[in-house]
Amino acid sequence: MDKPNILLSNDDGIDAKGLHLLSSELKSFAHVYVSAPHRQQSAVGHSITIYYPLRAFEFIKDGKVFGMAIEGTPADAVKLGVLFLYKDIKFDLVVSGINHGANTAINIIYSGTVSAATEGTTLNIPSIAISLATMEKVDFDYPAKVSAKIIKDILVNKSIHLTPKTLLNINFPAVPKEEIKGIKITKQGKSNWIDEFEVRSDPNGRDYYWLTGKMNIQDSSTDYDVIAVREKYISITPLQYDLTDYKLYEEIKKWNIEL
Amino acid sequence: MDKPNILLSNDDGIDAKGLHLLSSELKSFAHVYVSAPHRQQSAVGHSITIYYPLRAFEFIKDGKVFGMAIEGTPADAVKLGVLFLYKDIKFDLVVSGINHGANTAINIIYSGTVSAATEGTTLNIPSIAISLATMEKVDFDYPAKVSAKIIKDILVNKSIHLTPKTLLNINFPAVPKEEIKGIKITKQGKSNWIDEFEVRSDPNGRDYYWLTGKMNIQDSSTDYDVIAVREKYISITPLQYDLTDYKLYEEIKKWNIEL
Repeated sequence: MDKPNILLSNDDGIDAKGLHLLSSELKSFAHVYVSAPHRQQSAVGHSITIYYPLRAFEFIKDGKVFGMAIEGTPADAVKLGVLFLYKDIKFDLVVSGINHGANTAINIIYSGTVSAATEGTTLNIPSIAISLATMEKVDFDYPAKVSAKIIKDILVNKSIHLTPKTLLNINFPAVPKEEIKGIKITKQGKSNWIDEFEVRSDPNGRDYYWLTGKMNIQDSSTDYDVIAVREKYISITPLQYDLTDYKLYEEIKKWNIEL
Repeated sequence: MDKPNILLSNDDGIDAKGLHLLSSELKSFAHVYVSAPHRQQSAVGHSITIYYPLRAFEFIKDGKVFGMAIEGTPADAVKLGVLFLYKDIKFDLVVSGINHGANTAINIIYSGTVSAATEGTTLNIPSIAISLATMEKVDFDYPAKVSAKIIKDILVNKSIHLTPKTLLNINFPAVPKEEIKGIKITKQGKSNWIDEFEVRSDPNGRDYYWLTGKMNIQDSSTDYDVIAVREKYISITPLQYDLTDYKLYEEIKKWNIEL
């Protein structure tokens, strides 16, 4: 059988360690095509570039072309990769990651990693976002190996079936392999940020503001991504991008608004 | 009774016509505080700025301070406005718009206008995004007046009740007032883009890419935002930001993934 085709992207940039380790693992059973932002794009949300043109260039690593670096956002990279740079390839899966930092609860709406995967499903390709829940320096080896195993189950062994609209958000706890308790299928948590702005003055005496904050845990069980990861489970959350509030929809249909 | 407090933002930038007309209308019954990006921010998605600091400056119009211009995204402007610039104000509503161009169907996930309103609800303030469905030069007067009437019904007449988590996405058809058929409460449409990249060469012979595309209508009734607007209704869609795919959640809980 022909090897499956995977488009690989991320939001940490094409030279990020998480992407390279995942690429190595996936290459053992798949053709891997990389289209990723040329530099760090965290918290860019689901941005696309329409006001400026995009540029793309070959990214060379160890003397060889590793993939295409895009001067744009993660969603740009996936769109340009699928529709133009690798347009003759029929992709079986889009993979985004491995991100350095969790993408759980409210973070999902700001996540470049998730937006790259979401863009895959808008193009009718099943897609997976993968993140490692820490900002510390950590070992991506174990998450890369487990991610590759899950993806191989999907694409080669076909023991898990994804539709073109499937969007999975996987978060790994940042603990040694031995401490992982297993996999939990989860929901997006309700936890949010308590934000603050820290004011500083530049050398010319003008103020500028850094966003800081801490996570305000609002979830109580491992049915939610943020808790599952905290409790040392690998969290897999199925996502979609219909934002309609169906409960409120039924309610406000009763509103009587006169023009 | 004290006048209600409204934070006003947008993604077209603090000097956009749609924002100024809306501001004038809202000031007849509310205190309006403006915190908006200093320049055009379309299709930025739900970005926030964490990699660089933010700056803000007073925006002067006709010799007076009109509001605060933020060197950042629409979500940055709302976060900084509510939590820092106007932190002593208790806001009753966040309003984003009036955007120049529709924010319906798939466009919602790329929308800076909607992201500003979403940021309001993450801060527990009911929020409304308002857009006018055309890229042509048009008359914002009628949409501004109708939007102000709806907002007055909510904040002053209290004939419509919003919770701190209510997020409404309003789209106006770009037709003269007489042709408007009424208001439809709608769902986010399934229509998507058929994208293409147009390749050009710069004066030095290097390629660059413009994203182009056309909307692929996948909806058939005025129950969906994109069709309601096309059929000359004002569309009001209630949104939320839990992206969990609950149907798939139940299904994949049966998966047996071995580590």
